[in-house]
Amino acid sequence: MSALNTDLYELTMAAGYFAAQKTGDVATFELSVRRLPPARNFLIAAGLEQAVEYLLHLRFEKDEIGYLRSLAQFKNPPAGFFDYLTELRFTGDLFALPEGTPVFANEPIAIVRAPIVEAQLVETYLLSTFVFQTMVASKAARCVLAGEGRPIVEFGSRRAHSPAAGVLAGRAAFIGGCSGTSNTEAGMRFGIPVFGTAAHSWTMAFRDEEESFRALQNLLGESSVFLIDTYDTLEGARLAARLGKPVWGVRLDSGDLVELSKQVRRILDDAGLQDAKIFATSDLNEYRVAELIRAGAPLDAFGVGTQLATSGDAPSLSAVYKLVELKDGGGQIFTAKFSDDKSTLPGAKQIYRYADHDILALYSECNDEFQGEPLLRPIVIGGQRLEQPHAIDKTKEYAAKSIGALPERLRSLEEAEPYPVEISPRLLAIAEDLRREFQPAR
Amino acid sequence: MSALNTDLYELTMAAGYFAAQKTGDVATFELSVRRLPPARNFLIAAGLEQAVEYLLHLRFEKDEIGYLRSLAQFKNPPAGFFDYLTELRFTGDLFALPEGTPVFANEPIAIVRAPIVEAQLVETYLLSTFVFQTMVASKAARCVLAGEGRPIVEFGSRRAHSPAAGVLAGRAAFIGGCSGTSNTEAGMRFGIPVFGTAAHSWTMAFRDEEESFRALQNLLGESSVFLIDTYDTLEGARLAARLGKPVWGVRLDSGDLVELSKQVRRILDDAGLQDAKIFATSDLNEYRVAELIRAGAPLDAFGVGTQLATSGDAPSLSAVYKLVELKDGGGQIFTAKFSDDKSTLPGAKQIYRYADHDILALYSECNDEFQGEPLLRPIVIGGQRLEQPHAIDKTKEYAAKSIGALPERLRSLEEAEPYPVEISPRLLAIAEDLRREFQPAR
Repeated sequence: MSALNTDLYELTMAAGYFAAQKTGDVATFELSVRRLPPARNFLIAAGLEQAVEYLLHLRFEKDEIGYLRSLAQFKNPPAGFFDYLTELRFTGDLFALPEGTPVFANEPIAIVRAPIVEAQLVETYLLSTFVFQTMVASKAARCVLAGEGRPIVEFGSRRAHSPAAGVLAGRAAFIGGCSGTSNTEAGMRFGIPVFGTAAHSWTMAFRDEEESFRALQNLLGESSVFLIDTYDTLEGARLAARLGKPVWGVRLDSGDLVELSKQVRRILDDAGLQDAKIFATSDLNEYRVAELIRAGAPLDAFGVGTQLATSGDAPSLSAVYKLVELKDGGGQIFTAKFSDDKSTLPGAKQIYRYADHDILALYSECNDEFQGEPLLRPIVIGGQRLEQPHAIDKTKEYAAKSIGALPERLRSLEEAEPYPVEISPRLLAIAEDLRREFQPAR
Repeated sequence: MSALNTDLYELTMAAGYFAAQKTGDVATFELSVRRLPPARNFLIAAGLEQAVEYLLHLRFEKDEIGYLRSLAQFKNPPAGFFDYLTELRFTGDLFALPEGTPVFANEPIAIVRAPIVEAQLVETYLLSTFVFQTMVASKAARCVLAGEGRPIVEFGSRRAHSPAAGVLAGRAAFIGGCSGTSNTEAGMRFGIPVFGTAAHSWTMAFRDEEESFRALQNLLGESSVFLIDTYDTLEGARLAARLGKPVWGVRLDSGDLVELSKQVRRILDDAGLQDAKIFATSDLNEYRVAELIRAGAPLDAFGVGTQLATSGDAPSLSAVYKLVELKDGGGQIFTAKFSDDKSTLPGAKQIYRYADHDILALYSECNDEFQGEPLLRPIVIGGQRLEQPHAIDKTKEYAAKSIGALPERLRSLEEAEPYPVEISPRLLAIAEDLRREFQPAR
C-alpha cells in the first residue's frame, strides 16, 4: 500500500498546485460509474474498507521521495515541495455508500473532500479499489440470483488479475452473496468461510482412484467431496457410491453437467446416499447456472471461478473520479466538464432512495425536502475514521436485503428497464447555469 | 505475499499427502494455456520474476498456522502436520520460459518439479502471477504492433483489478513493448519509465484554462503536455499555440480523434509549432490505434488504459497447472488427464523453436535430436536461484526481437493461420500408451 501507487500525473499536479500556492484549496471529487455494463441492472458497492485503510495510512517513505527526486519530471521541483510531500497525510473527508448498497449509473459511490493535493493524489488507488470490488460483488449477486438459493462459492483466485486481486475477489464475492471462497488468505484476513477439498492431481497422485478417494475420506470424513471426473465420471460416481459414508458428496468438473448429474444422482440414490450432494464447477457463470437449474440438473451447489473473479463479461467499469466542487481564495464554486461525450454534473451529491426510484440531489440540499433514504454516509472526517468497520457477514446480509428490496425486474439476469435516477430541480438548475456561463475561461 | 494466498484445497491435499506419507513423492506440474483467446496469434510469457520471488520466500507464519488450525477442515489434522507446514520451504526446481518469449497453446510457460506438497501448494499463486502478466504483455505487444513505431504508454492503473494489479500491469506492458507506464510504483520497483502531466481536474482547478496551461508550462517546461479538451478542443489548441514553447505538445482525450487531430495539427503548425506532438488517449485499444493511423490522424503517441491493464477483450486465459510426472516409492511414472474436454499430455516437456514451427518433446529427450532452440530454462534448482534477474529493458528488447522473428502473419491483429506446434514421436507414443492402459485404476 505505497503512496507511490498512483498515476504520475497526480504527483506532477501536486507539484503544480504547490507551486501555484493552491495547497489550501479544498477540492471535492466524486467517484461514480458512467454507465452500467450490458445486462447489469444494478451494481453492488464494495471496496470501502480497503479505501479507508489506504487513506488512513497514506504517506511517502524516504526512499519513495528519493525516487521521485530522481525523475526527469522533477528536475526542477518547486522549492520545498518534497518536504511538503514527506509531511503529507490524508486530512480530508470521505463520504461513501455502505458496502453492499445497490448503486446505479452516475450515482456517487464515494465522495472525497480534502485539500486539493490530497484529494487528487488518491484518485488512482481509490478507483481501482472501489471499482474492482464493486465489479466482482455485482457479478456475485447475479450468480447468487441465478442459483435460486443454492450456495455459490467463489473459486477464481487462480485466474484473478494477480494474487492480490484474488484475495479481494474472495471478499467482494462474499459481500455480493457468495457462501465463501477458496482463497485461504481471504478467509483469514476477512473472516469469510473457505471451501475446498481436492483437485484432479490428487486423484492422479495415488496408484488408483479408489486409493485416492479413501485417503480423502480418512482425512475429511463427512466433509469429503469426491472429484469424480478424472478418468470416467460414472465409474467415479460408482466408486464414491461403493465407499459410502462419511461423505458430503461429489464434484463434477467436466462434460455434460445436466446428463451426468442426473446419472450420478441415480447412482448415489441407488446406493442409499440420498443425502450426498452434487457440486458443479467447470467454467460456470450466472447464465450457465440458470440454464442448469432450468434443465433440471440435480445440482446442489456451484463453484464459480474465472468469470466471477474477473467479472468476465464486464471486466471493467466506466468509472470516473471527477472534480465537482472547489473552494479557493475566491470562494466556493461548482465545477463540471462539458466535452461532448464525457460530461459530468457539478456539486457533491446525496442519493435519496425511494421504493422504485432514486433522487440525486446536492449534498447541501436540505434532507427534509426528501422522504427517500439518504444513502451516502460520512466515513472519514478530518482524516479520522468515524466508526469501526462493519462485520462482513452483516455487510453481506445488508446487501442481500437491499437487493431484495429492489423492483423485481432488476433481479433478472437480462437487461431490464433501467431503474430511474432523477435529478433534483436545484441540481439541474446549477448544472444549467454552469453550462451557460462556461467558456474556455470558467 | 502470504503462503496462505492459495486455494484451500491445496492445503487439504497437503494434509492428505502428509497423512498418506507421500511427502517424499516428487511431482512435476506444467503451467500452460489450453487455447489462445480469439484474435491472439501468440502470447508473450511474463511474470517469472514475481513467481521466483514467491517461491524463494514461501513460508507459513505463526498466525497463519493458527488460522488453519481454527478451520473445520483441520478439526482432525494428521499428527505433526502443522509442524511440518511450519518448516516447509520451497526446495524444488522451476523451469520456465524467459520473460518476453512468444508462447503458444499447450506449451509450458513454467514447470515445477518438487516434493508433492510444495509443488501442489504453489499452484494458485503461480497461475495468477504468470497468467495475468502474460495476458497484459500479450495485449501490449498487439498495441505496439498497431502503433507502427509510435510510442504506446500504459495508462490503465485506475481500471486495473486492484491497485496491486495496476503495478504489475505496468511491468507486463513494458515487457510487451510499451514505452512506459503512468504507474509511479511500477516505475520505482521495476525501473520502468513513467509518464504523465495533468488531468482535466487540473484545468478546472484554475480560474481559466490559460492560467492552468501557464502553471503547467512553468512547472514542466518542454515536458508540458496541454490537455486541450476540458472545455472546447479547438479553443484549447489555439490557446496552446498562443503560449508556444516550451512545450512537448498537446493531449486529446475525447471526441472525433481523426478530425480533431487534423485541425489541431493545423493550428499548431500555423503557429510555428511543427515540433509539438499530439498525444491521444480516450478508450483506446489496438484496433482503435490501427484505425486512427489508417485514417491518417496525425497522432504521435498513444496512451492505452483500461483495455491494456485488464486485457479487456480477453480478460482471462484458459491456463492450467497439470500433474505430468510423479515419482513415488514405486518409481517414476507419467500422468495425464483423459476426460473428454480437458485432456492433457503427460511428461515434463521442452519446447524447441524453429523458424516457422515449434516441436514439443519430453524434457528428457536428447537435445541433439532437435536443431531448434530449446526455450525452457532452469531458473530455480533445489530451492536456489541459478542466475540474477535480467534487467527489464533487456527483457523488453528480447521480446521485441522474438516477436520480430515470428512468421509475418502472426503479427497481424486479426486471427492468422495458427503457428504449428508439433509433438515429438516419443511424446506422442507415451501419451498413446498411457491412454491405452488408463482405466479407473491407472
